[in-house]
Amino acid sequence: MSDEFESVEKSLQKHLPEHELVEVRRILYGKQLRTLELPEDAVQEATRKDFELAGYGFDAEREEVRSPRVVRVGAIQNKIVIPTDAPVLEQIESLHKRITEIIAVGAKCGVNIICMQEAWTMPFAFCTREKHPWCQFAESAEEGPTTKLLQELAKKYNMVIISPILERDDNHGEILANTAVVISNTGAYLGKSRKNHIPRVGDFNESTYYMEGNTGHRVFQTQFGKIAINICYGRHHPPNWMMYGVNGAEIVFNPSATVGGLSEPMWPIEARNAAIANSYFTCAINRVGTEVFPNEFSSADGKPAHKDFGHFYGSSYVAGPDGSRTPGLSRTRDGLLVAEMDLNLCRQVKDRWGFRMTQRLDMYARELSEAIKPDYVPDVVKEK
Amino acid sequence: MSDEFESVEKSLQKHLPEHELVEVRRILYGKQLRTLELPEDAVQEATRKDFELAGYGFDAEREEVRSPRVVRVGAIQNKIVIPTDAPVLEQIESLHKRITEIIAVGAKCGVNIICMQEAWTMPFAFCTREKHPWCQFAESAEEGPTTKLLQELAKKYNMVIISPILERDDNHGEILANTAVVISNTGAYLGKSRKNHIPRVGDFNESTYYMEGNTGHRVFQTQFGKIAINICYGRHHPPNWMMYGVNGAEIVFNPSATVGGLSEPMWPIEARNAAIANSYFTCAINRVGTEVFPNEFSSADGKPAHKDFGHFYGSSYVAGPDGSRTPGLSRTRDGLLVAEMDLNLCRQVKDRWGFRMTQRLDMYARELSEAIKPDYVPDVVKEK
Repeated sequence: MSDEFESVEKSLQKHLPEHELVEVRRILYGKQLRTLELPEDAVQEATRKDFELAGYGFDAEREEVRSPRVVRVGAIQNKIVIPTDAPVLEQIESLHKRITEIIAVGAKCGVNIICMQEAWTMPFAFCTREKHPWCQFAESAEEGPTTKLLQELAKKYNMVIISPILERDDNHGEILANTAVVISNTGAYLGKSRKNHIPRVGDFNESTYYMEGNTGHRVFQTQFGKIAINICYGRHHPPNWMMYGVNGAEIVFNPSATVGGLSEPMWPIEARNAAIANSYFTCAINRVGTEVFPNEFSSADGKPAHKDFGHFYGSSYVAGPDGSRTPGLSRTRDGLLVAEMDLNLCRQVKDRWGFRMTQRLDMYARELSEAIKPDYVPDVVKEK
Repeated sequence: MSDEFESVEKSLQKHLPEHELVEVRRILYGKQLRTLELPEDAVQEATRKDFELAGYGFDAEREEVRSPRVVRVGAIQNKIVIPTDAPVLEQIESLHKRITEIIAVGAKCGVNIICMQEAWTMPFAFCTREKHPWCQFAESAEEGPTTKLLQELAKKYNMVIISPILERDDNHGEILANTAVVISNTGAYLGKSRKNHIPRVGDFNESTYYMEGNTGHRVFQTQFGKIAINICYGRHHPPNWMMYGVNGAEIVFNPSATVGGLSEPMWPIEARNAAIANSYFTCAINRVGTEVFPNEFSSADGKPAHKDFGHFYGSSYVAGPDGSRTPGLSRTRDGLLVAEMDLNLCRQVKDRWGFRMTQRLDMYARELSEAIKPDYVPDVVKEK
């Protein structure tokens, strides 16, 4: 891993003269965000547990008619802890332990809503196409051991927890789903939201394991704001982001698992574009490290079979509705990114830019309804 | 203007050590593009006429069943030439002359399709809210003097020309429209496409002058590929970009006029996100310089009235469907950006990523049709 580049932001910070750094930052990252002062015991604990801890604040104007609605969001990125050929229950336990440690630091930092990476209780094994043993990582969204553990933590820390797991749905034919479970800060199970768009790209046809989500674009009203979850590949689909906004989301989480060779130049673009286009905050979370699997597999790219498919580049970040964004977490280390945000900024940006007013949803409802017809003829102008 | 920062790319190039520059570029700009060798007489002419000339190439894989479809696209950004209080016809003439010079260099560079900035025959005077004299810059899309001039150039250079102007529509009540005229390389008038989304932000409520476009999302089949035009503020609306893709566009131009204080951190994100999401090329064009108007105007921001509303930051660029992009043109100078692209890359990326296959348009047609109903109730999950 030591040959992996650590981060763009650190490179700019190190080499650019101060006055150019200010301009480059403004153009690439938007309005300079406040750096959060995080509690000393949290910082020490993160060092002891060997993960990066960083915090930034998005401010909003003071309003006369609403009080500020300041919340702290936590994004966790992490490597798997033990090898992928260890017993399934031990792998799950090792990740439970690791995430419990990181959530505890989040609690010290006053985090109100925390989210883990996609399928966080397991290695991202879908590249193997093997059903055994990976399907055994699936569990009930409503009452699986992972949900139970997090319900305790949620209540203990008064924290909303978003837990993206591989779900086993016993009520519907024991199918699998790629699902984010939302647990209220009271400890109650609040609901679940499934991955709407399933990749067939690179190493993945995830429909080997689960199909397109059927939970639509629901939004969860929590004590700390209205949140939604757009899982991984859904970030490539702007209407997916849009519908969460239409339903009123103020923060949309994008728990992901994606590697450098495939998607890295797209990563800083997509979740941030969604924040801009929909006047809400987005929180892009990617796992980190290289996962080596027991059996070799091929990648349909003419290359020899191999046991890993590349480096998960982390780089988790939070983007604001005003075009600003935090630096990314490291490309190589576990990390917790804490973002403080005044949710009033969402409506303020709506009032300023007016995208919701000018978006002409009626036109798109009409045009899409036409476009999906089997006999649709695109509007193409040709020279006579 | 000398206090304006020139460009992010030049700053990175100057200060980063080579091995870090390679990584930073890869993450921020995607796959390294080929630098085009442009003809020496074109380079000299650009120097003589004091504008930047840059060229990059996007390559695609060779296919067995299709020949490469290599085209060169030109994007022009420019300042106005003479003061805004000069006679209207002189202002138009000065811009006709300037653009004729730049198009001639485009021809030397083998450009097949060229596009100017939004409302290129005039200063971007809509901030003033004055109807006089600015409405006089409007002309017929079909047979105005600008279209006539460009028809000659199109034929002479065998070049498709996209000409975004302020249109006067005599057949529909002499209204104004913000319109891109498309002229075929044969010199024939091919058609027009209007700005679909009209801003009400910052200095602009452009609906003081013209309303939301009624030309839908038409695509123009030219000899050099299928093109479409998403004018300015339409870039903030992902479904707008999407519908051009649904209709088959391979290159979508985004002629714009936008200033640093308003939108600069969004600029590198939006057109590039559209290229990724829709598996086509996008060409983002912004004017450059500061325009000073004869009469002072206020900006509804509590500040004193003034005669300009800020610096148009240029930074025009081209983005590819694979997440790569060219560097931007300068923030301060006139320029011509030449991008060579093999349009076969669009379908290759569609085959690789599958966004068109996985985009579930039927779900969005259904959900949007619901969402626009007056009694729509968003899907919000609450704790019981």
